[in-house]
Amino acid sequence: MDERESPYKLVAASDGQSRSLVRVGDRFVGAGTFTLVAGACAVETPEQLAAACEAAVVAGATMLRGDLFKHRTSPYAFQGLGADGVEMVAEQRRRFGLPWVAEVLDPRHLELVADVVDVVRVGARNMQHFELLKECARSGKPVMIKRGFSATIDEWLLAAEYVAASGSLDIILCERGIRTFEPSTRNTLDLSAVPVVQRRSHLPVLVDPSHGTGSRALVEPMALAAAAAGADGVMVDVHPHPASARCDGPQALLPGELAALGARLRELAVWTGRTVDGRATPAVKEA
Amino acid sequence: MDERESPYKLVAASDGQSRSLVRVGDRFVGAGTFTLVAGACAVETPEQLAAACEAAVVAGATMLRGDLFKHRTSPYAFQGLGADGVEMVAEQRRRFGLPWVAEVLDPRHLELVADVVDVVRVGARNMQHFELLKECARSGKPVMIKRGFSATIDEWLLAAEYVAASGSLDIILCERGIRTFEPSTRNTLDLSAVPVVQRRSHLPVLVDPSHGTGSRALVEPMALAAAAAGADGVMVDVHPHPASARCDGPQALLPGELAALGARLRELAVWTGRTVDGRATPAVKEA
Amino acid sequence: MDERESPYKLVAASDGQSRSLVRVGDRFVGAGTFTLVAGACAVETPEQLAAACEAAVVAGATMLRGDLFKHRTSPYAFQGLGADGVEMVAEQRRRFGLPWVAEVLDPRHLELVADVVDVVRVGARNMQHFELLKECARSGKPVMIKRGFSATIDEWLLAAEYVAASGSLDIILCERGIRTFEPSTRNTLDLSAVPVVQRRSHLPVLVDPSHGTGSRALVEPMALAAAAAGADGVMVDVHPHPASARCDGPQALLPGELAALGARLRELAVWTGRTVDGRATPAVKEA
Amino acid sequence: MDERESPYKLVAASDGQSRSLVRVGDRFVGAGTFTLVAGACAVETPEQLAAACEAAVVAGATMLRGDLFKHRTSPYAFQGLGADGVEMVAEQRRRFGLPWVAEVLDPRHLELVADVVDVVRVGARNMQHFELLKECARSGKPVMIKRGFSATIDEWLLAAEYVAASGSLDIILCERGIRTFEPSTRNTLDLSAVPVVQRRSHLPVLVDPSHGTGSRALVEPMALAAAAAGADGVMVDVHPHPASARCDGPQALLPGELAALGARLRELAVWTGRTVDGRATPAVKEA
Repeated sequence: MDERESPYKLVAASDGQSRSLVRVGDRFVGAGTFTLVAGACAVETPEQLAAACEAAVVAGATMLRGDLFKHRTSPYAFQGLGADGVEMVAEQRRRFGLPWVAEVLDPRHLELVADVVDVVRVGARNMQHFELLKECARSGKPVMIKRGFSATIDEWLLAAEYVAASGSLDIILCERGIRTFEPSTRNTLDLSAVPVVQRRSHLPVLVDPSHGTGSRALVEPMALAAAAAGADGVMVDVHPHPASARCDGPQALLPGELAALGARLRELAVWTGRTVDGRATPAVKEA
Repeated sequence: MDERESPYKLVAASDGQSRSLVRVGDRFVGAGTFTLVAGACAVETPEQLAAACEAAVVAGATMLRGDLFKHRTSPYAFQGLGADGVEMVAEQRRRFGLPWVAEVLDPRHLELVADVVDVVRVGARNMQHFELLKECARSGKPVMIKRGFSATIDEWLLAAEYVAASGSLDIILCERGIRTFEPSTRNTLDLSAVPVVQRRSHLPVLVDPSHGTGSRALVEPMALAAAAAGADGVMVDVHPHPASARCDGPQALLPGELAALGARLRELAVWTGRTVDGRATPAVKEA
Repeated sequence: MDERESPYKLVAASDGQSRSLVRVGDRFVGAGTFTLVAGACAVETPEQLAAACEAAVVAGATMLRGDLFKHRTSPYAFQGLGADGVEMVAEQRRRFGLPWVAEVLDPRHLELVADVVDVVRVGARNMQHFELLKECARSGKPVMIKRGFSATIDEWLLAAEYVAASGSLDIILCERGIRTFEPSTRNTLDLSAVPVVQRRSHLPVLVDPSHGTGSRALVEPMALAAAAAGADGVMVDVHPHPASARCDGPQALLPGELAALGARLRELAVWTGRTVDGRATPAVKEA
Repeated sequence: MDERESPYKLVAASDGQSRSLVRVGDRFVGAGTFTLVAGACAVETPEQLAAACEAAVVAGATMLRGDLFKHRTSPYAFQGLGADGVEMVAEQRRRFGLPWVAEVLDPRHLELVADVVDVVRVGARNMQHFELLKECARSGKPVMIKRGFSATIDEWLLAAEYVAASGSLDIILCERGIRTFEPSTRNTLDLSAVPVVQRRSHLPVLVDPSHGTGSRALVEPMALAAAAAGADGVMVDVHPHPASARCDGPQALLPGELAALGARLRELAVWTGRTVDGRATPAVKEA
């Protein structure tokens, strides 16, 4: 799509306009901040979720993750605990007092998670499930939109425009890799999308190096690269026992690895001029 | 995905099993037949829809198409007439007595089209919208599943497996191009997917050269190529006035072009040993 | 690249100009003809080459293939017999009196094959090895240019333009698949490239379904699809004992399979209005 | 290609082996160092080359670039000054006493540049031009191998293996983007290739954000991202008057932009534990 004719309007950057700060509970994402979202890929057991959240908090995360619904390629794969996991999420969210990010696959999931999820996430496979995006917009919660595996940046911003046109500008984008011919990584993390998005749109953009690479050994270098490229944050999986994870174990960091990465990320984010506690500074607020 | 470990079960080909015949009204798709689906990309006006259907019937189509809901990249593009077009579809369907194929974007659309649509289609962008696939399976109507822009053949068959696992084996696959680096065509029509699918699965597979190329001049050569490669049919757009079409005009054939193509396709299909009236032969039924 | 600004000149189609006929010995490729090139992927032994050539001739091939130099990803793979195979090629070429197509990897190979090869082929990995293309142009022999794995159609035509600008318009293009995310086939054969090339350029374009799919079972359907799409010919591998081939055995047809395919291709080519003996008809010559 | 069966031997990483240091003049690339290569995309005029080199040196580059031969898609595009530019290169190389990196397109170029080029570079389009790679190996100079647009990481390492098998392990890899469907950037810079290569091979790997993105605005974020991901260096274009550059002006930094980037890169490289003067430290030497 020719950039000159791009039809996104509400999410487009415009001259003299600052980049957006999206409020999530008492934290902020975007414009001058750097956010670490960490936690479980999927909610599995109370013990696993507690351990993942502890590791996330120790590492300095200001938002937690843990999905109740998993979007799986095969109907025979683990699909998430669904309603059975709501109370586990509620417990960890209360325990740490941090906002919770989780995926919804269907408009009907919104009601189910209404009391325990602070940011509703629409996954890569659903990026153009526009009915879902519109319902998320109407939920009153910030919406995180992952980039589709084969979505151009313009298509991604147009998916965000569906949310915006439905009444909400509380949108957070998340790059998680595109599909290419290279078999070494599950997807090819397109970090150049970060500065491209930041020039075309005022929306914040995070990077998910866990799902974007599919490989534990690549999470740290790519998380640091994302921060250096100017991403507004990263989202990282952690698991106390990756080998027995029910979903995506090979990409989960161990708690100690996440703690080390969190410290590195904070240093790098500060070096790039960002705040790292998820609280907007006066300077940012005035921008 | 390693073919040996492919987890699709119900849709997998197995030794000694014939390829499936899917019944649609009094017509059949698959195993030994060749189906021409033709008609409108989108339902626009009574006159346009009537002209598109006449052209389809003249060309020998045994199923008609015309969508009420369009899955558009931009929220500001024409989204289809929705409920306002139902009566138009009903009229043309009665007039010609042929089965109607149309896309649904959301489970709630199923009820709306229940009386006028014979095959519910799930589009490329929704190929992994599994809640929609499951609801389609439960609708009692055959389900056509387009291949996602970046879906591997295994992922496509696993999407079909979601339908099968929900209780319906009345599934028709439709190749419509994958996303590559080549800008000359809107997508790259992957015709090798036809014989690959036919080796891995018993399900019929059609090809959509209109959406797969995005260009009128390429529809005829690629439709013929699809037939020669063994596809169980093709689906083609026609429009009386492509220049004023509200959606995808550049790919629509003119009525005369479709008539010429239909005649060529019948010859080629017969040459490849298939029947072309959509009625299963005794030999096929016994297979 | 914007088609309006495409800088190819000598190879571009222009109004009122007929499509090119390239003379190869006493045969022709292009404009109104359909050519079957068949034979060995690589020259291995006198017996293997003789058997492959016999199978090709039985199947109706009007040009033979058999490479002395193989372009292998690994330095430890079989690289071709080189000079040791020249006499074997000479013998089969004399025996059948048909033109021979073979790859050159380096300008220095041109002299070595000067007496036994009638069409010099530049492979996909060398499509932009412009020094080689220029030397081929100066060799006085027709040049076959395979499309690079990641070459756009415009880049392919510009590679041909390098040959044309060096003084030769005896150019034959050959589609052999592009690199995509799909793992089921070695490459994704882009058959829509055939009509696109034929609209942009007057040059003939063949299709190689053997290298383009990498799989014996896919060669016949894709060869037929290429003919139906209007390709000016196909190039197919055959081997008397594929399981012991030193190169690309899994894609080689058995002699009987090739004979069956050749008969089908002739019928289909005649149905599409082409001559199949490689001899231009008067009508074509006057065009 | 299955990693377990990867046939590269000489370039493969092995347990207990340190990563390679490649000596270039009195500088080193790899293992514990971070190298900034900067200068002109193409040698154009004495004034332009002098200004580009000054800017590179001011920015802290420890190697200079400036090509005499350009590998252009079109035969009608600027192909480089060739022999006419050799003296210009010689002059700037003497003036600053730094090693010079330049591309060769053909084995015959090696003699021409023998006295003025310290690292011979094989471009993306020639990555599998194995005759050229073998000749480069025999030149006695370190060889820089850019990744092909559609080369897998394994194919890239196997291209390096061709050099190694020809007798030289003085090899530097350079990632410069792969071809994907995304049109916002000229290529998609695959930064995850950096840690993947560093796990599979002992060879150093640089990143070229200028050619990899094609856009000035993206060079700084992607150069910083490369350094954070652990790349052994970056290679950046600079031009005193990008608007009038004969080649790739839109991606060239202005001298002031390069100076700012160089300072940021040094800080980041030191933060990641690397030395930045191109001189191996005692610790590295012992490693």
